[in-house]
Amino acid sequence: MSQKVTVAAAQKVIEASRRHAEKIAVPSCIAVVDAGANLVAFIRMDGAWLGSIDIAQDKAFTARAFDMPTKELARSSQPGQPLFGINASNEGRVVIFAGGIPLIADGRVVGAVGCSGGTPDQDHEVAEAGVMAFVPGGEAGR
Amino acid sequence: MSQKVTVAAAQKVIEASRRHAEKIAVPSCIAVVDAGANLVAFIRMDGAWLGSIDIAQDKAFTARAFDMPTKELARSSQPGQPLFGINASNEGRVVIFAGGIPLIADGRVVGAVGCSGGTPDQDHEVAEAGVMAFVPGGEAGR
Amino acid sequence: MSQKVTVAAAQKVIEASRRHAEKIAVPSCIAVVDAGANLVAFIRMDGAWLGSIDIAQDKAFTARAFDMPTKELARSSQPGQPLFGINASNEGRVVIFAGGIPLIADGRVVGAVGCSGGTPDQDHEVAEAGVMAFVPGGEAGR
Amino acid sequence: MSQKVTVAAAQKVIEASRRHAEKIAVPSCIAVVDAGANLVAFIRMDGAWLGSIDIAQDKAFTARAFDMPTKELARSSQPGQPLFGINASNEGRVVIFAGGIPLIADGRVVGAVGCSGGTPDQDHEVAEAGVMAFVPGGEAGR
Repeated sequence: MSQKVTVAAAQKVIEASRRHAEKIAVPSCIAVVDAGANLVAFIRMDGAWLGSIDIAQDKAFTARAFDMPTKELARSSQPGQPLFGINASNEGRVVIFAGGIPLIADGRVVGAVGCSGGTPDQDHEVAEAGVMAFVPGGEAGR
Repeated sequence: MSQKVTVAAAQKVIEASRRHAEKIAVPSCIAVVDAGANLVAFIRMDGAWLGSIDIAQDKAFTARAFDMPTKELARSSQPGQPLFGINASNEGRVVIFAGGIPLIADGRVVGAVGCSGGTPDQDHEVAEAGVMAFVPGGEAGR
Repeated sequence: MSQKVTVAAAQKVIEASRRHAEKIAVPSCIAVVDAGANLVAFIRMDGAWLGSIDIAQDKAFTARAFDMPTKELARSSQPGQPLFGINASNEGRVVIFAGGIPLIADGRVVGAVGCSGGTPDQDHEVAEAGVMAFVPGGEAGR
Repeated sequence: MSQKVTVAAAQKVIEASRRHAEKIAVPSCIAVVDAGANLVAFIRMDGAWLGSIDIAQDKAFTARAFDMPTKELARSSQPGQPLFGINASNEGRVVIFAGGIPLIADGRVVGAVGCSGGTPDQDHEVAEAGVMAFVPGGEAGR
């Protein structure tokens, strides 16, 4: 049975990320995309930056588009590094700092979560809390 | 006390819209924006059209951008009518068919909900269910 | 086992569409997208319009984004009809004339083919030839 | 007789790049553009990054737009270097790392191939395999 990011699964991820964001007092935008990198669910916590609405979604997109945490792109996209300039690709939707992490089921990337609102390290933490709560839904849930 | 679309208020709206969408069997995308026309919360129900991700958000944007249900724009934007062509403005984010409705508190528009997934009439119904469940949050909730 | 639009499956669709396009002498652009509406394969036949490069891809996107042939949108998006104006949504990628058709496996839409190069009716024919040749690949093929 | 990137020529290039990509186990997106920098053919191999769909096409665009391998732009677009910032031009379609290479016939650039899916060095290798297989089609082939 194929595993996927249903809306119920996405909302559990967001809820877990939100709880962590509250705990560390970082009002955040939190987005979840599915295997096709298309948006499934999103929230902007009260007091979160307006600029984070796009960044959270773009981090989720990026983490699925390259099947890796956006934090890893941070290293390889510095001046002089192999992927310098990659953030201009994909219509500017590639985010090259931490906060986006793939969602994995049965060893395959099936979606991603993206968080924005604090420092990149904080955003990564908030995303990680969501990843840990991820339980993929089955096809039957569709 | 200023009334606003907190994330908690937005999620209640979405939950009510979702229940109605389930009842009429129309898998929908549902979006809520605040007074600044900026996204607060969003869900894509399982099985909803991918093309509705943008349209639901754009309907919510439109309903707040012009402080009226998108259904009213449908009339005035027909060929020969005063607003013909308006849907190309605002970078293509103006939707001129039903499914977006303002959220009102104390007689002022403080946000909007946008729904997409069925016929415009169904989308309007689904949005209306959300509007009816809207209870604005106070500043204290921030 | 989940059925999907592998690159091999997409190339068979394109090859069948191309043969039909040659038969009716309509140099065409032909695009295939997967379940996430993301591009899998594309060709521009010699002599096809440059303007068709985008349109073929957008037709494939549209057919998957709304799980219906783009030809059906043509009716409902006329002035005075329920979806008038829909083509401005989704960043202008919604095509409201014939030539895009969903690819279906086990009763579910798993992708789409989009063709552009002739009249909408010819484009629909060319797309249909591709649809008829569609044999989804399994997960194992990934 | 004018030499050009026919669809048949483009597909041979893509096939050769794909074989090399399979050999080094780097699922890739591979794109070929013609003298006008317009897309002729494209494939996304199974398992290739979604983010590579745009990058492969943009690398092919870039290699033809500046008539040089994208790898050469990497040097001159670093901070402090003459072309710093060039990747934001052309609507973000200029890629400044390896993987795009011009296709040449009779000493003139007549198109380009762009590959994305691995490290820039791997992408360059995959593109090179395509370049080596390039046999331009004549006008008669049109």
